[in-house]
Amino acid sequence: MSQNKPSATLLVSCPDNKGLVAAIANFLMTYNANIMHADQHQDESENLFLMRIQWELEGFTLPMESFEAAFAPIATLHNMKWHTSLSTQKPKMAIFVSKYEHCLVDLLHRWRIGELGCDIPLVISNHEDCRRIVEFNGIPFHVVPVTKENKAEAEAEQWRLLQEAGTDFIVLARYMQVLSEKFVERYPDRVINIHHSFLPAFDGAKPYHRAFARGVKLIGATSHYVTQELDEGPIIEQEVTRISHRDNVEDLVQKGRDLEKVVLSRAVRWHIDNRVLSYSNKTVVFD
Amino acid sequence: MSQNKPSATLLVSCPDNKGLVAAIANFLMTYNANIMHADQHQDESENLFLMRIQWELEGFTLPMESFEAAFAPIATLHNMKWHTSLSTQKPKMAIFVSKYEHCLVDLLHRWRIGELGCDIPLVISNHEDCRRIVEFNGIPFHVVPVTKENKAEAEAEQWRLLQEAGTDFIVLARYMQVLSEKFVERYPDRVINIHHSFLPAFDGAKPYHRAFARGVKLIGATSHYVTQELDEGPIIEQEVTRISHRDNVEDLVQKGRDLEKVVLSRAVRWHIDNRVLSYSNKTVVFD
Amino acid sequence: MSQNKPSATLLVSCPDNKGLVAAIANFLMTYNANIMHADQHQDESENLFLMRIQWELEGFTLPMESFEAAFAPIATLHNMKWHTSLSTQKPKMAIFVSKYEHCLVDLLHRWRIGELGCDIPLVISNHEDCRRIVEFNGIPFHVVPVTKENKAEAEAEQWRLLQEAGTDFIVLARYMQVLSEKFVERYPDRVINIHHSFLPAFDGAKPYHRAFARGVKLIGATSHYVTQELDEGPIIEQEVTRISHRDNVEDLVQKGRDLEKVVLSRAVRWHIDNRVLSYSNKTVVFD
Amino acid sequence: MSQNKPSATLLVSCPDNKGLVAAIANFLMTYNANIMHADQHQDESENLFLMRIQWELEGFTLPMESFEAAFAPIATLHNMKWHTSLSTQKPKMAIFVSKYEHCLVDLLHRWRIGELGCDIPLVISNHEDCRRIVEFNGIPFHVVPVTKENKAEAEAEQWRLLQEAGTDFIVLARYMQVLSEKFVERYPDRVINIHHSFLPAFDGAKPYHRAFARGVKLIGATSHYVTQELDEGPIIEQEVTRISHRDNVEDLVQKGRDLEKVVLSRAVRWHIDNRVLSYSNKTVVFD
Repeated sequence: MSQNKPSATLLVSCPDNKGLVAAIANFLMTYNANIMHADQHQDESENLFLMRIQWELEGFTLPMESFEAAFAPIATLHNMKWHTSLSTQKPKMAIFVSKYEHCLVDLLHRWRIGELGCDIPLVISNHEDCRRIVEFNGIPFHVVPVTKENKAEAEAEQWRLLQEAGTDFIVLARYMQVLSEKFVERYPDRVINIHHSFLPAFDGAKPYHRAFARGVKLIGATSHYVTQELDEGPIIEQEVTRISHRDNVEDLVQKGRDLEKVVLSRAVRWHIDNRVLSYSNKTVVFD
Repeated sequence: MSQNKPSATLLVSCPDNKGLVAAIANFLMTYNANIMHADQHQDESENLFLMRIQWELEGFTLPMESFEAAFAPIATLHNMKWHTSLSTQKPKMAIFVSKYEHCLVDLLHRWRIGELGCDIPLVISNHEDCRRIVEFNGIPFHVVPVTKENKAEAEAEQWRLLQEAGTDFIVLARYMQVLSEKFVERYPDRVINIHHSFLPAFDGAKPYHRAFARGVKLIGATSHYVTQELDEGPIIEQEVTRISHRDNVEDLVQKGRDLEKVVLSRAVRWHIDNRVLSYSNKTVVFD
Repeated sequence: MSQNKPSATLLVSCPDNKGLVAAIANFLMTYNANIMHADQHQDESENLFLMRIQWELEGFTLPMESFEAAFAPIATLHNMKWHTSLSTQKPKMAIFVSKYEHCLVDLLHRWRIGELGCDIPLVISNHEDCRRIVEFNGIPFHVVPVTKENKAEAEAEQWRLLQEAGTDFIVLARYMQVLSEKFVERYPDRVINIHHSFLPAFDGAKPYHRAFARGVKLIGATSHYVTQELDEGPIIEQEVTRISHRDNVEDLVQKGRDLEKVVLSRAVRWHIDNRVLSYSNKTVVFD
Repeated sequence: MSQNKPSATLLVSCPDNKGLVAAIANFLMTYNANIMHADQHQDESENLFLMRIQWELEGFTLPMESFEAAFAPIATLHNMKWHTSLSTQKPKMAIFVSKYEHCLVDLLHRWRIGELGCDIPLVISNHEDCRRIVEFNGIPFHVVPVTKENKAEAEAEQWRLLQEAGTDFIVLARYMQVLSEKFVERYPDRVINIHHSFLPAFDGAKPYHRAFARGVKLIGATSHYVTQELDEGPIIEQEVTRISHRDNVEDLVQKGRDLEKVVLSRAVRWHIDNRVLSYSNKTVVFD
């Protein structure tokens, strides 16, 4: 998984066809690429080919600024959707948070000790609560209050801050506001949310209370890309933990926090490592 | 868990009150009971007291046939729902099955090697398929075909067979017919079903197909008592396993079989060991 | 699990005998105790009786300062080892840490949001590294350098600091020094360590490297009470996570951090809640 | 995972080098292969390249009987260890068992319902116990008693039976005899064992008793290839389950059976699907 040498990663999806692996491998070989890792998947039900291939930049004779031009003919021929990323170029992650700080604190700590290969130019909240811990980490903290009335203006202000910071993707670390369709459209597959249930069970409000009322024996957490439909986006990761009749709602909330932290941080790491491809409201996570 | 000495088990639920533990412990001490295990639970939200207490029959000076009369005053005073069971008296379990044999085979094997402290007087199916393996285990196999038209007669015949065999409880080992309300009412908390999803997600038909379509990262199985509402009864046990984009629907079905076997067999064992108390559509499973 | 009302908890272990549950329940009833939770266990192989019983302080007519005198006759009669704790009296936890901060940060965060019902009067380290995050949490941070030469003096200084702070128990949050037998003897079952392997596998040094070399498919973490024998003390909690051939040693270390945090924090919470009884180098954890 | 179309699978390991993916992909493309799945791995610490590639036989213009000759130049050039398998050619699996039948019964059932794509020409045991269930499945059952005295002759007889049946690999389904080095040498990476502990913990005899004595909170099972060193071979799969102070040794044995069945059957399935590559006493399991 972790790769220390400078590397490039190519993510590709296209209609399945013969010779795709060879075509891509040959293209890279032409420029003397040393392939560190390659993984592919066919979705038979969709006749879709998906591939992730990672190679060392050292010794690669094609300058990455020329990659698009050089790869375009193959991409066009096979009708590929594709993009590349460089291990040397950290994506910029913005974090949205409300009052619950556990996911935020967890992400900031992972970032501080080098678990997350990204920059965090800013944290946006609709409350003051998390300012101290964010600024302790040397990250600008912006409060943008949100009400029914000012939602449009608030999102405009958030948008301005995100643009200013050159944000690549957004993590909703228990952010308790629903983003507008208009806002979400601007970040396709680039807004990661954590929902505190095992989706599709208990989507929407108060999942722990409903899990308690239903008497389930396991509770879960789900990280997914945000789409127009609330809690309906492509699932990136899920995890569960056991509960018993001894656990009341507070216990579920406490046990759930551990799930939320682990599940969200995995999804964020995989997104940063360019391992996640989404299609027909599902994800492929290349490991 | 396993207790080899002959023992009696008392399951109690009643409105919570002071002195309940002492009252029950004193009653048993009066008759020189050697308590092997006692466990209790309070549900604050329901102000309910629930207890399971198990003691050795050896040295217990109250004949069990007189237990009811002797315990009645305490039970009445505290408005208890209660029942007892004896490790020396194996409950009679009937198994319903259709064509999928994995849960049936698993239960029969566990029974054969002594994992399940019950008798199995009969297996009822709406198909011939499982006859050979059932009869290999020396258990009578009855085929009762079920159609929309003959459902009432079929259930009458099933009922007759169950009565004849002195059935205490029923296990639906992937039995693909829905039992009528009338039938279910006859076995309150005594019909155990296995549903091949992590309820409440994907209740109803084709859960594996729907899990695949939704792109979940874990699939589950749920064992519950059957009530009037399909897949809505009190959950006894649940378990999940990880899947990935590499798994197609067939893979989910195959991985799911292992979940179904383990989850159903646990629920059955706990029911046999008199560990399960159900209330307000939930269960307490005393471990 | 979580209990908000002021309560007292009694932990008892003694030779198994008839009437123990009744004796304790009656004693409490005499003083009008409202029992919130009672759990007991018999270890047949050791003929040992163990019990945890928790009751509300409100309405309990025996002042807790008189509890010992009042309970002594029963305790003596049955040769009990016992102690009580009050939910209103937070134990004082000292944390030892070296350079790895993940367990420390995790514990401090859980403490800050109220997951851990203890006070943290001080953190002791043999390095400066963690000062900032500790002081951010408003907790005194003491550096006591340890070398082969000064070990005795260092422990004397640590001991002085712990005494001064009225420490009840110690958590070794990846503290990389071995405590002397003399030091450990002072805190029987009151020093909690986290070891980064699934004990007894890979005890001692560099467990992740050895797990990688052996090619195991799961890695683990273990929290235990510290005894004279390194990594041989009574195990409080363990957890594992899956790894694959794709994971190198760094990946194991990263995945392991999540295990260490969860396992250590559970052990600490259970210890604080007075749920852990240790005997013959094992623990009973009452849930 | 499951692939229904007739396919060929190539497993390769060789010193890592540039152009290996392209070389293999091009070779297959030359013969119009439709690649269904390709996965590769580099072990940096060993500078090793490992690949599994699977393609449809339909439309593949190179007759498989000519594959070796055609592929040899590439294999030689890159110093490859390699072999192919065909989904149309079921490997022959022999099962060794003693008295515990749970793993045997589980494997036979999975085989009967089509989970395992192999033939089972025979079962060999040192006891009569399992004859009935084996013959119920229509499989020849051979008893070869083993004693200290006759071990050599017994293994000679086993060897004769295995040869006669054209056995490809052997599964030790809780076979309680240690195979001689001479015997093992004949089946490198082709004898799969199940050990009832989380190796390397509790290798050797009575692991459940030792796990109970140590007071671990999880027990495990491990499936591995058999080598000269007892319980030291390359690990294919491991799994664990939670236990508590309430579980006595019998409970561990019962819970362990479920682990043993699942872990062994996974290892067997992966071996049959040609997913397992072993090197330096580890395995890569391509998923």
